[in-house]
Amino acid sequence: MIKARITVTLKNGVLDPQGKAIEHALSGLGFGGVGAVRQGKVFDIELAESDKAKAEADLKAMCDKLLANTVIENYSVTLG
Amino acid sequence: MIKARITVTLKNGVLDPQGKAIEHALSGLGFGGVGAVRQGKVFDIELAESDKAKAEADLKAMCDKLLANTVIENYSVTLG
Repeated sequence: MIKARITVTLKNGVLDPQGKAIEHALSGLGFGGVGAVRQGKVFDIELAESDKAKAEADLKAMCDKLLANTVIENYSVTLG
Repeated sequence: MIKARITVTLKNGVLDPQGKAIEHALSGLGFGGVGAVRQGKVFDIELAESDKAKAEADLKAMCDKLLANTVIENYSVTLG
């Protein structure tokens, strides 16, 4: 069994209103010096697969088809 | 300036309906052998701070106060 972590983040230049809201909330809570905040998603997936190369290819296909919107999002796959 | 990544994930044992839905969607798309899927959040934060220890303490305080619900979620802070 392979455990993998997929991280999906917005591409640079794509507006992130949720990140902006968090930025303001943190300032409001008294945290100074907070610059840009960007929010993304993380998926922890267990795969019944022993071949790492095959697993990685599968995970990338999952990102392309379902987990990420590749027009506005980047993804990275980490096998662990 | 310090760039940090905060990863917030559900604690073990906490039900994750969104993860379950993704699990089923992946099976429906023809990806076999997908076990548990758990979804979490990631925050990329820029801090105007040069002291790494101070930055890490600040980031943990941000998690405790705003970014994570520590009753049901774990968080990890990575300085990069």
